[in-house]
Amino acid sequence: MTHPRLSLNQATIKYADLETALRVTADAGYQSIGLWREPVQEVGLDAAAALVRDSGLRVSSMCRGGFFTPLEGPERRRAIDDNRAAIDETAAMAGAGAAGSRPVLVLVAGGLPDGSRDLIGARERVGEALGELVDYAASAGVQLAIEPLHPMYASDRAVVSTLGQALDIAEPFPAETVGVVVDTFHVWWDPEVLTQIERAGAAGRIASYQVCDWATPLPADVLLSRHYPGDGVIDFEPMTRAVAAAGYTDDVEVEIFNQEIWDTDAAAVAAQTASGFETAVAPYLQTAPVSAGR
Amino acid sequence: MTHPRLSLNQATIKYADLETALRVTADAGYQSIGLWREPVQEVGLDAAAALVRDSGLRVSSMCRGGFFTPLEGPERRRAIDDNRAAIDETAAMAGAGAAGSRPVLVLVAGGLPDGSRDLIGARERVGEALGELVDYAASAGVQLAIEPLHPMYASDRAVVSTLGQALDIAEPFPAETVGVVVDTFHVWWDPEVLTQIERAGAAGRIASYQVCDWATPLPADVLLSRHYPGDGVIDFEPMTRAVAAAGYTDDVEVEIFNQEIWDTDAAAVAAQTASGFETAVAPYLQTAPVSAGR
Repeated sequence: MTHPRLSLNQATIKYADLETALRVTADAGYQSIGLWREPVQEVGLDAAAALVRDSGLRVSSMCRGGFFTPLEGPERRRAIDDNRAAIDETAAMAGAGAAGSRPVLVLVAGGLPDGSRDLIGARERVGEALGELVDYAASAGVQLAIEPLHPMYASDRAVVSTLGQALDIAEPFPAETVGVVVDTFHVWWDPEVLTQIERAGAAGRIASYQVCDWATPLPADVLLSRHYPGDGVIDFEPMTRAVAAAGYTDDVEVEIFNQEIWDTDAAAVAAQTASGFETAVAPYLQTAPVSAGR
Repeated sequence: MTHPRLSLNQATIKYADLETALRVTADAGYQSIGLWREPVQEVGLDAAAALVRDSGLRVSSMCRGGFFTPLEGPERRRAIDDNRAAIDETAAMAGAGAAGSRPVLVLVAGGLPDGSRDLIGARERVGEALGELVDYAASAGVQLAIEPLHPMYASDRAVVSTLGQALDIAEPFPAETVGVVVDTFHVWWDPEVLTQIERAGAAGRIASYQVCDWATPLPADVLLSRHYPGDGVIDFEPMTRAVAAAGYTDDVEVEIFNQEIWDTDAAAVAAQTASGFETAVAPYLQTAPVSAGR
């Protein structure tokens, strides 16, 4: 049985179009899916909403906005505009999803601009971009969710590298509009991760909990180094218990970028994902002890 | 002119034997070298000491001890014994080096044991190993230097991932016997790096400052992704100024693992290293302003 809180992030079955992704996910017994913008845009927002509605699935999040680090100028303006569009799409998809859908837009901060070494400045511009978007997001009823990415992506993808830093950036803004993503792959190594999960929960800012595993050696493209829960070295118990203790009771996404998994039949991937989740993550989703025998 | 505080870490010219490394380093105008144990062991400790003495160079550090994460058993005992040997070698090499040599043994913590997911336990065992070694190191007059490695190595090489964590582990021990390494490549991404450098300086625990650069895409073997200062995206100014402000006045090592650089003539590498250092790092080594014009 597929866990009632498990959501299949669409990137895990990257080559499926929206209609296929929704069908595969529902057929595998999932109740929830995490959507990406590109496959939604491919069919258009109205058609996408109809497909989502027909699927009966919840929408657990929308990936992704962000890329907030360009210096002021046309590129930065395009990024801000694109995030407004992403907010609209998030509201539409969450509105089309079943009850319990979450209007959460996952934000990847962006890397250093070409030729720049100003990491501190790039980080400041992330906060400034949020300041520009927060009213628009609030009006749309969308929660922006800053995702700290693993520090190996700090230069070229996301200058936000830890959960603590994401929470610092979120702090000036209302929690219902600016939250954070806890993704085990990105934060498992952090000596402060459990404390920062607790802090995020206390602030009401856990917008999404995503799980996948870490294994070495890393592949040549380090973006594709994510694995099914249980196939790597991450101990999901402490982080999952911390997320539960912090009060998070919503869907949990599995999001995997992995060429081998992308090359596998989507239905098989959905089943394997559910099975890995059941063993490695699900036992720790409740705050109560798993069994008297533990 | 080669900067008087610049030290060439021997790993940067990995294929040179000890005698060659000392000659190349001295010929390039360096006053200091960071040694590795393997090339020292290759000639034997007495012969190595004679070579170092004849070179007239300072020894800025010895690489490396550590690998403290095995569970109790023969492998762990071997690791502890090996670290005692490394302490002896460090004392001998620093003793053979010119005045200003530093009896600093760089420690790489070690990764998760095979099949283990217990990151928290592995981290605890690092502190326990230090507890076993600290008296021996103190007797030998050697400072053990915990090097936090980039989080992308957390599972297979070093469970110590941030400067703050290294300082937490060092805290129970006297600063003259347990310090930390600040290596720009490993810590540049850390939002807390400047604060933690300040903390390290206040505690008297900066045992070594190592500089090299970060660039993407990472090569297939992520261990070999280090670059000459100035060839990547690291801004050396804030960290170098912080290290200077923290009171560190000793040698600064350039340690680069990079196949292309290893395949280059050692003298050319020494010259290129000095040139990169002069431009990207040296201007910030003084606490006073670089020039009135800044």
